[in-house]
Amino acid sequence: MDDAQRPLPTNASLSSNGRDQSHQEMFQRDLLCMDSSFADATYTPNASTLTDASPPPYEGEAPVHPQSGSPVVINDSLRNPTIEKLERVRKWSVNTYKCTRQMLSEKLGRGSRTVDLNLEASIEKLRDLRSRYDNVTKLAQTLASQTAQVTQTQKLLGDVFADLSIKTPELHEEFGFNADTQKFLSKNGETLLKSINSFTAGMNTLVNQTIEDTMVNVKQYENARIEYDAYRTDLEELNLGPRDATTLPKIEQAQLLYQQHRQKYEKMRDDLTIKLKLLEENRVKVLQKQLILLHSAVAAYYAGNQQKLNQTLQQFHSRLRTPDTGLQSWLEEC
Amino acid sequence: MDDAQRPLPTNASLSSNGRDQSHQEMFQRDLLCMDSSFADATYTPNASTLTDASPPPYEGEAPVHPQSGSPVVINDSLRNPTIEKLERVRKWSVNTYKCTRQMLSEKLGRGSRTVDLNLEASIEKLRDLRSRYDNVTKLAQTLASQTAQVTQTQKLLGDVFADLSIKTPELHEEFGFNADTQKFLSKNGETLLKSINSFTAGMNTLVNQTIEDTMVNVKQYENARIEYDAYRTDLEELNLGPRDATTLPKIEQAQLLYQQHRQKYEKMRDDLTIKLKLLEENRVKVLQKQLILLHSAVAAYYAGNQQKLNQTLQQFHSRLRTPDTGLQSWLEEC
Repeated sequence: MDDAQRPLPTNASLSSNGRDQSHQEMFQRDLLCMDSSFADATYTPNASTLTDASPPPYEGEAPVHPQSGSPVVINDSLRNPTIEKLERVRKWSVNTYKCTRQMLSEKLGRGSRTVDLNLEASIEKLRDLRSRYDNVTKLAQTLASQTAQVTQTQKLLGDVFADLSIKTPELHEEFGFNADTQKFLSKNGETLLKSINSFTAGMNTLVNQTIEDTMVNVKQYENARIEYDAYRTDLEELNLGPRDATTLPKIEQAQLLYQQHRQKYEKMRDDLTIKLKLLEENRVKVLQKQLILLHSAVAAYYAGNQQKLNQTLQQFHSRLRTPDTGLQSWLEEC
Repeated sequence: MDDAQRPLPTNASLSSNGRDQSHQEMFQRDLLCMDSSFADATYTPNASTLTDASPPPYEGEAPVHPQSGSPVVINDSLRNPTIEKLERVRKWSVNTYKCTRQMLSEKLGRGSRTVDLNLEASIEKLRDLRSRYDNVTKLAQTLASQTAQVTQTQKLLGDVFADLSIKTPELHEEFGFNADTQKFLSKNGETLLKSINSFTAGMNTLVNQTIEDTMVNVKQYENARIEYDAYRTDLEELNLGPRDATTLPKIEQAQLLYQQHRQKYEKMRDDLTIKLKLLEENRVKVLQKQLILLHSAVAAYYAGNQQKLNQTLQQFHSRLRTPDTGLQSWLEEC
């Protein structure tokens, strides 16, 4: 990717923090500013970050505070693996601190953040669609449950009508036709129910597996973006300061970390872009199939019922052509 | 009505009670025999009986026990209306005692009862049908309530599909067709719902008004039958005893009461027979109408839906003839 395509920080003014204050002071101030609405703003490293630099359990060692910057005293008895662990803890803590500071700055509207407009629009659209599809799934489940209840009632009504058709010969056909109809509707309803359940299962897989899987990548991308912006801000702050023998190695180190995180961020962004395009195609194909199946099932249900009812209606009509058969009043008979 | 048509006591052996025992002794014995299952066997006179001979409130007078047979002492200060009231109380109490005794005898299988086989079969059939129709009404009410829920869900699903049809142009038609279908089904369902509710209302009127009205006559007839059998048993018992100057007036009085109650019973029976025939005709006509209306409404619902779905399916097919429009893979596009 060339530089022209590289996402740029937003136009939000670059924070002037950090030129006259140490990182610790800034962090203290940020924490004081943090109100309850920012309680969820603490940076949570993604799975890979934790695997790379998760803090080891403190197995009897004195607690260490790497972010305080004070040198860590290592006993002679401690071997290299322990030193490595402590180093990992230090890196993890510094990283967490930097990212939390970046998130707070963004929340408070002071920091600058890198924005890929197309990608963020795609993510926003996906979140919106996931919520809407979830709603469709729940409504289809409700419809399935209600359809099951209706088929059960139709079955009971069919049985009662059939009993009455036998018990009351004077209304044998009227009860009989309705019994047949209700029983048929009930049976056909069970087929429709299977189709609705199949639609629900398809939607469920799309929402809770396919989209959810991409959402994991979204989370990883978002974490990588915060890390990248945190190290970018760091470098920018150092570049604004004096350049001397003390600061130059720090600037070089910051430059290195910035490059590393930029590469990681760009990789995540590119991976996510591909995944989102694949999901988009898959989503459209799955939904197209499911929606056509649902429509066909509903159409088949009504066509089948209509055909059956048509037959019954014709029988009914032939009976109705000889009206009041057996229904002559007993008063007339006398 | 000639004598040949007159209902006869059943072949159950005529009770020999009363020949050697006074009514009071028999009543005591009957009460001792009465177990908890007969708690509901106490004779309750019907409305007309109560109007004719209901006990007046005891307005300061000493309680009277007409059934003990002891003469009632009337003060000079008491005027004719009070005497009349006391006489009514006496008659009511004697009547209630006789009828309760008759019911207990029947329950214990000792007494004889008059049975009109045709009428009792009709009553039994009506009770059975009332219970079955009540079941049909309840099931139809359940179906109406479930249909209302389904139409509500279809409406919501239609709205969600319509939103998605606008939000996702790549699936505009698939969501659009399903939105139209669900909305149409919901609207058509409301018409079906009205028909089911109309059927339920018709059934409700039949069960809880028309049949219930006849059931009042059944209760009156049953009470008249018990009274008739009670006075018949009385007369039969007296006829089996000695005929002398003391008993003859009693026999004549019993004969008179027997005739009165036989006439009342026969009137009730004839009224009920006519009412049952009228009900039978009304019931068949009402049910025939309701069942045809229900069937037609169901048929119209499915025919309407099928027609609508057919149109949508044709549109769907014309779209499916140009498959994968706009669905070329982005990998193929590259």
